[in-house]
Amino acid sequence: MTHSVAILGASGYTGAELIRLISQHPNITIKALAAERKAGMEMADVFPHLRHLSLPTLCKIDEIDFSEIDLCFCALPHKTSQEVIAKLPGDLKIVDLSADFRLRDPEAYEKWYGNPHAALEQQQEAVYGLTEFYRDEIKGARLVAGTGCNAATGQFALRPLIAAGVIDLDEIILDMKCAVSGAGRALKENLLHAELSEGYNAYAIGGTHRHLGEFDQEFSAIAGRPVKVQFTPHLLPVNRGILATTYVKGDAQAIYETFAKAYTDEPFVELLPFGEAPSTHHVRGSNFVHIGVTADRIAGRAIVIVALDNLTKGSSGQALQNANLMLGEDETAGLMMAPLFP
Amino acid sequence: MTHSVAILGASGYTGAELIRLISQHPNITIKALAAERKAGMEMADVFPHLRHLSLPTLCKIDEIDFSEIDLCFCALPHKTSQEVIAKLPGDLKIVDLSADFRLRDPEAYEKWYGNPHAALEQQQEAVYGLTEFYRDEIKGARLVAGTGCNAATGQFALRPLIAAGVIDLDEIILDMKCAVSGAGRALKENLLHAELSEGYNAYAIGGTHRHLGEFDQEFSAIAGRPVKVQFTPHLLPVNRGILATTYVKGDAQAIYETFAKAYTDEPFVELLPFGEAPSTHHVRGSNFVHIGVTADRIAGRAIVIVALDNLTKGSSGQALQNANLMLGEDETAGLMMAPLFP
Amino acid sequence: MTHSVAILGASGYTGAELIRLISQHPNITIKALAAERKAGMEMADVFPHLRHLSLPTLCKIDEIDFSEIDLCFCALPHKTSQEVIAKLPGDLKIVDLSADFRLRDPEAYEKWYGNPHAALEQQQEAVYGLTEFYRDEIKGARLVAGTGCNAATGQFALRPLIAAGVIDLDEIILDMKCAVSGAGRALKENLLHAELSEGYNAYAIGGTHRHLGEFDQEFSAIAGRPVKVQFTPHLLPVNRGILATTYVKGDAQAIYETFAKAYTDEPFVELLPFGEAPSTHHVRGSNFVHIGVTADRIAGRAIVIVALDNLTKGSSGQALQNANLMLGEDETAGLMMAPLFP
Amino acid sequence: MTHSVAILGASGYTGAELIRLISQHPNITIKALAAERKAGMEMADVFPHLRHLSLPTLCKIDEIDFSEIDLCFCALPHKTSQEVIAKLPGDLKIVDLSADFRLRDPEAYEKWYGNPHAALEQQQEAVYGLTEFYRDEIKGARLVAGTGCNAATGQFALRPLIAAGVIDLDEIILDMKCAVSGAGRALKENLLHAELSEGYNAYAIGGTHRHLGEFDQEFSAIAGRPVKVQFTPHLLPVNRGILATTYVKGDAQAIYETFAKAYTDEPFVELLPFGEAPSTHHVRGSNFVHIGVTADRIAGRAIVIVALDNLTKGSSGQALQNANLMLGEDETAGLMMAPLFP
Repeated sequence: MTHSVAILGASGYTGAELIRLISQHPNITIKALAAERKAGMEMADVFPHLRHLSLPTLCKIDEIDFSEIDLCFCALPHKTSQEVIAKLPGDLKIVDLSADFRLRDPEAYEKWYGNPHAALEQQQEAVYGLTEFYRDEIKGARLVAGTGCNAATGQFALRPLIAAGVIDLDEIILDMKCAVSGAGRALKENLLHAELSEGYNAYAIGGTHRHLGEFDQEFSAIAGRPVKVQFTPHLLPVNRGILATTYVKGDAQAIYETFAKAYTDEPFVELLPFGEAPSTHHVRGSNFVHIGVTADRIAGRAIVIVALDNLTKGSSGQALQNANLMLGEDETAGLMMAPLFP
Repeated sequence: MTHSVAILGASGYTGAELIRLISQHPNITIKALAAERKAGMEMADVFPHLRHLSLPTLCKIDEIDFSEIDLCFCALPHKTSQEVIAKLPGDLKIVDLSADFRLRDPEAYEKWYGNPHAALEQQQEAVYGLTEFYRDEIKGARLVAGTGCNAATGQFALRPLIAAGVIDLDEIILDMKCAVSGAGRALKENLLHAELSEGYNAYAIGGTHRHLGEFDQEFSAIAGRPVKVQFTPHLLPVNRGILATTYVKGDAQAIYETFAKAYTDEPFVELLPFGEAPSTHHVRGSNFVHIGVTADRIAGRAIVIVALDNLTKGSSGQALQNANLMLGEDETAGLMMAPLFP
Repeated sequence: MTHSVAILGASGYTGAELIRLISQHPNITIKALAAERKAGMEMADVFPHLRHLSLPTLCKIDEIDFSEIDLCFCALPHKTSQEVIAKLPGDLKIVDLSADFRLRDPEAYEKWYGNPHAALEQQQEAVYGLTEFYRDEIKGARLVAGTGCNAATGQFALRPLIAAGVIDLDEIILDMKCAVSGAGRALKENLLHAELSEGYNAYAIGGTHRHLGEFDQEFSAIAGRPVKVQFTPHLLPVNRGILATTYVKGDAQAIYETFAKAYTDEPFVELLPFGEAPSTHHVRGSNFVHIGVTADRIAGRAIVIVALDNLTKGSSGQALQNANLMLGEDETAGLMMAPLFP
Repeated sequence: MTHSVAILGASGYTGAELIRLISQHPNITIKALAAERKAGMEMADVFPHLRHLSLPTLCKIDEIDFSEIDLCFCALPHKTSQEVIAKLPGDLKIVDLSADFRLRDPEAYEKWYGNPHAALEQQQEAVYGLTEFYRDEIKGARLVAGTGCNAATGQFALRPLIAAGVIDLDEIILDMKCAVSGAGRALKENLLHAELSEGYNAYAIGGTHRHLGEFDQEFSAIAGRPVKVQFTPHLLPVNRGILATTYVKGDAQAIYETFAKAYTDEPFVELLPFGEAPSTHHVRGSNFVHIGVTADRIAGRAIVIVALDNLTKGSSGQALQNANLMLGEDETAGLMMAPLFP
């Protein structure tokens, strides 16, 4: 059976990535592509790399007949997304890729994003979209909230360890490095090639990055008490890839075994041999997650490194994985492409 | 029906690219992977981006039972390839990715490669592997010779024009720019990141690059008289992609129409609207070819630009496309992945 | 004796490059830095790499007391530049880095730039700033017009050959490749890291690039009859560097000797041994020009390759070289830094 | 007065960088350049970016008349360096850029480098070359040992803090990111452009990197008791630049004030405004160090970020700075070039 989907926000990177992935899916057809400012244009003119595909002309959201749509991907900017979703049919299946439905607590949302939430009802209904940990809820969900790319990466490193009680909850440091596509297609000076390539820097230092809201919510829920991590994001001069170097206090071998158990049946999670370091090179363009664990020379400390593609597993691949569950498809459909190397 | 294949030279980039593509093929199983110096190793250790696949352990060529193999890809260095292929079973279907069987004339081979050919019989038998132009011969061939990546790119720009007689045969300039993966995984100083990135240069200037042998052979055959093009290759500081800027004398509109006719049914060739310029960004990781035609301000001159991925359409994708024909599979099987952008 | 200079347009790349170079000059002091939209800011906040220098706070042009200024660099956008310069004191020495005073013919200016020239008087007075060929005029000039970076590169390849009559004037092709900094600090989608890096494309194909105005003007003047070249610019995924691959008809040896004679005493022009290819790697961050000549395999054809840094020799370095001449300083002062490699 | 210097190991990146810097020095002349395997070659053929300089032909070390040399830079691989230096004249001033004389304790040397030291006498005599902290000893030294580039970066972040007692000595994490030129010009697969660019990974995880020997030695000496830091190096897909993200426990304001006091008179160290993050973009090609301090959202924790150019301040620039002190020159001579941006 073929499912019809719509993509709202099709002119951004996550929209294009969804199309790339869905083009490999046996049972999903793209029925509508919306992009307000580029409505009327052909996808081939907005993203020439999709030129070979037969795709609907870009339209405005209002022009979509949602009665024909089985599932809608929202790849809109945050704030816009909640306003749009509040007005969509109440029985429409939705996978949202924005930040709008990640935080369950309206106050936490307002604290991190600066505005009161405009779709409180939907916020309460939304299921957090980290597939490997919310699989059952996602299967029955109407609205799934895609995670932040940093948030996904950090949670692959830490959720099983917090749940198993094998690390010190007050001594967690996430040194994160993310590719520039994580910032989207926005026209900002620091995203220009001439400003970004050949260099490297941290940003949002000291605990001001919004993805901390997700870490706080999720880690505290698992631990059953408040957990605050230290998190420093850096901007990598590459287009795709995110790598978390995680410093924890705990026994490295116990940590490794915890991962081995937690991820043993996961189709997209690869635990490397003990002591090996993953690289973003080896997950680029794919939905795979590579995890490495190493003991530090200081007893009782370990380093957990997680690599994934921020646009795929960190965003659009995760979204399709969730959509597969919501539509009763094989969870891996359209997502088994090998990474692109070199 | 599932076909069993072997890949000889599996530890190089074209070998890895074959595995990436075949992992998406519905009807091909990899039965053997040979890499002499890395025999005994697992593919996950040689190319960690293929870690998620169940692949045979690397072996030596001698260890392969070719009676179980339906088709063999040879991704070996030139010279080695002819020696190996001379000893393989005479009825084994082979797609060779090296330079060894591209030139039909033993003297031309020796002129460009410096050594007498060691498999003259097979050289005579080999079919030149530019699928779009040798499709029928390839279907019935036992041994197909993959083209050079520069050679493929230049031929997409020029074959239909020479055949149609719409350009001056004595005034053809191919200014070629190729990504570094075209040079393979060899340990050379000029291929180091520190030497190659952030810069740009030409090499093999003045008509010394070996792919000229292919241009001379093919263009002269089409024209029915000797055709010599000017060809200057440059090294691009990117990993994938090749772009030919071709300067020809002829009517741009007639050139465009010639392409429109020649490529109208080709599944992998996209002719851009007149006056548009293709980019290697938009074919990366895919088997697609983008072609653009523009009239110069000087009357009677045109610029033809062709972009493709040197590792895919320029090498391993072309090889799989040919294998599909030889095995009676759909020509596009395993090859319809969209390009990776950004 | 120390000269006081002002830089108008100090918040762009050519402005920053001027400051970098002048910081090494023994006899020039920067008295004023203007940047209309960033007036009031410190340079350390606009270009943190200049943080160690003691520089004037950014101001508006109106706030500068030009009676204290010996020479003014205008690094403003074209069109703005002519409007500003028309109002500057009539005896102020000026080096303009924009396109506004490169073309002597008002009609040619309007044809290429689309608007009537707003400073016709100054346009007539301006000296074309390609130092090596206009040295004497520049020494006595009040207003010098910096050349386009493509225009400079192409002229180093062709001026001596046209002057010496050793090439066919109707068969010249300039295949040009320029780094992204040549496009300035403008916020355009195609200049984003995610869009530009890892790829390659041509633009302004077919004879529409404005630097053709300079080629037409200069080459025709040397030849004493109209000369039109074919010129295709490409965008390189690097920050600095421009390389021209020039296809000419003529005797390669005669061409080489012509260059040897023309450039023998030039402090910044390096003629490589016959047959060697220059690289943008080897001129990066410097005022040097590297030139290589090779004979093609087709008799009577040659390839001339020129590499320089578009921001230095192609723009701000050239500007300082001209300022040195106008101020009676050693032409090379502040400009002998070695290229940065790797 | 002009000083004559020799450079041993002139065909590597640190050798080339020394020549680039010395070419701007008013009082130093390069008298001899040694490179065993490339002896007889001209520098223009080994490093074409130095083509414009008049330099001695490369020779073997044995061919140098050291009686004419005032100071010798050794840019040789470790182990080779100690063997060579053991045989050089005992009164020759030497700045060594290798790892051979950084560790004062022969046992520590053997532990980290795997071989007994072959020049124990010189090892005892050597002064550790982190200029800002060993200035007086360097002035009178005969043999100065250049620091590791990671080691230099980490010490700029931590020495003043350990000395002032403002951080917890048992809770220090150095997350380090270094450009590929830090690995030298060695032909290794992971240093190829195709393997390194567009990706990111950690290496030598868990406390196995040799620069830890320097951290242990120096930090323990300052503290007067053993100090062990956690140190994870990562490889950046850029050519120059190193950035340390340092996690410490202490009061961020006290840390900032400690730096302000420690670095106030340092010509090459720039302390950014509180809360700002340095970038490797802004120190590239220069001898400057940028330092930023931020308070974390978790009380009592701070992040200290240090950026410098690994080839300049981390190696050859530091070496010239030390040579200036040893020769009685102005410490900043030849070293005040502004960074290259973009």
